[in-house]
Amino acid sequence: MNVLIVLAHPERKSFNGGLVDVAVKQLEDAGHQVEVGDLYAEQFDPVEHAEQYPHSAVASDYFYPLNEQRAHYQQDTLPQDVQRELARLEWADLVIFQFPLWWHAQPAILKGWFDRVLVYGGRYTSRMRYDHGYFRGKRAMLSVTAGSPGIAFQPFGRAGDMVAWLWPMHASLYYVGFDVLPPQVSYGVQGGGIEYQKEDALRIHLNACKECWATRLAHWEREKPIPFAGWEDWNSEGVLCETSPWRWRLG
Amino acid sequence: MNVLIVLAHPERKSFNGGLVDVAVKQLEDAGHQVEVGDLYAEQFDPVEHAEQYPHSAVASDYFYPLNEQRAHYQQDTLPQDVQRELARLEWADLVIFQFPLWWHAQPAILKGWFDRVLVYGGRYTSRMRYDHGYFRGKRAMLSVTAGSPGIAFQPFGRAGDMVAWLWPMHASLYYVGFDVLPPQVSYGVQGGGIEYQKEDALRIHLNACKECWATRLAHWEREKPIPFAGWEDWNSEGVLCETSPWRWRLG
Repeated sequence: MNVLIVLAHPERKSFNGGLVDVAVKQLEDAGHQVEVGDLYAEQFDPVEHAEQYPHSAVASDYFYPLNEQRAHYQQDTLPQDVQRELARLEWADLVIFQFPLWWHAQPAILKGWFDRVLVYGGRYTSRMRYDHGYFRGKRAMLSVTAGSPGIAFQPFGRAGDMVAWLWPMHASLYYVGFDVLPPQVSYGVQGGGIEYQKEDALRIHLNACKECWATRLAHWEREKPIPFAGWEDWNSEGVLCETSPWRWRLG
Repeated sequence: MNVLIVLAHPERKSFNGGLVDVAVKQLEDAGHQVEVGDLYAEQFDPVEHAEQYPHSAVASDYFYPLNEQRAHYQQDTLPQDVQRELARLEWADLVIFQFPLWWHAQPAILKGWFDRVLVYGGRYTSRMRYDHGYFRGKRAMLSVTAGSPGIAFQPFGRAGDMVAWLWPMHASLYYVGFDVLPPQVSYGVQGGGIEYQKEDALRIHLNACKECWATRLAHWEREKPIPFAGWEDWNSEGVLCETSPWRWRLG
């Protein structure tokens, strides 16, 4: 299988970078092909703006991102970095996003990856969404680090329910058709990489997180994706049908 | 009162820009001082990276954002654009964030505003958070546009519960101490600004959204903020106490 790892951390020697190294080794040892897209190293520009489209395909006096995305997709003139990311996604069977949780979400550089790469008209339309999404058959997974301990991210925890923080990203990946595997969350990741830790306890903890990640990646192909409602659940107004079982889920 | 409007849209003539114009007029007519921070026009860099700190205060061979933020805050050497944004926040009694919902969240340029401006060690620490947050006494409000109609963003709607999409931002603003007012959500905002709409129905709808926004802003000072749990609700492990009423809220 082909695995793409999208890394979003400003320090390659960080623990996030270390988790990428663990994943590359584990996956390659198991016979998979792996490519790492390091958004910081590649200086990915996360800002969707008119200058990304020097030759506007739609209107030179008014920049509407979705119109430009669709037109440039159709004319095969999308920005080079977006084309590169789309080619990587085309190649991949599994996409892993490796990032630290900043302000209850992905870092801006990765948020912009969603804004710019998942182009309207090309990777989704009003019909090509959800379980009819472009990427159906491919899998995606978030691998997240968080500074606070896991107990704080439980539903009753002060740091807020991790399910809620990852929901916008999970829903976005499902929107374009991915089967979204449960995330790998490494809690209590503070400061620098393992070699920068002075405390034994934290070094031991971080090494355990790495082992846990490697163990999990040994059998990702057998994992089941997060369940989502689909087109059969919604009525013509886009609301869950009275008979949809999803009406009876809390939260 | 002083009102800061942070705008995050790549086209100043967009409907988002129009909502800013409505707000400026309404608030100034009511005697408030208003400043607009247009992140796109000011080319705000949303990416937190080592080059933001040319003279590392902590470690030249390893970039850990929180350490650099704290050290540069303490030495009063934060990046110029961050200092400008902090001064604006200091001045403001109310901060309005005006942006379109992209991939269930704020555009990357605004996500990076959170990543870079709300500096560790200066605007929050492990003790200076939540109801002990730095900005307590100030108010914040999201003004969001979304392409799908409102019915799709209800809890049973296909587009997903708007409460969930705004929760990471609302929680982040509360984290640094803001009283977070309920958001203003303008649904069904598609394509360009009003003058670019060919359909009468959409023009009428968008004008109604503007009127609704102006009407609301006439009495924002009397609005109550979103309720959140606080330090008195959590035990020493950061989990809701058995006696906290927040244990008995769904979702």
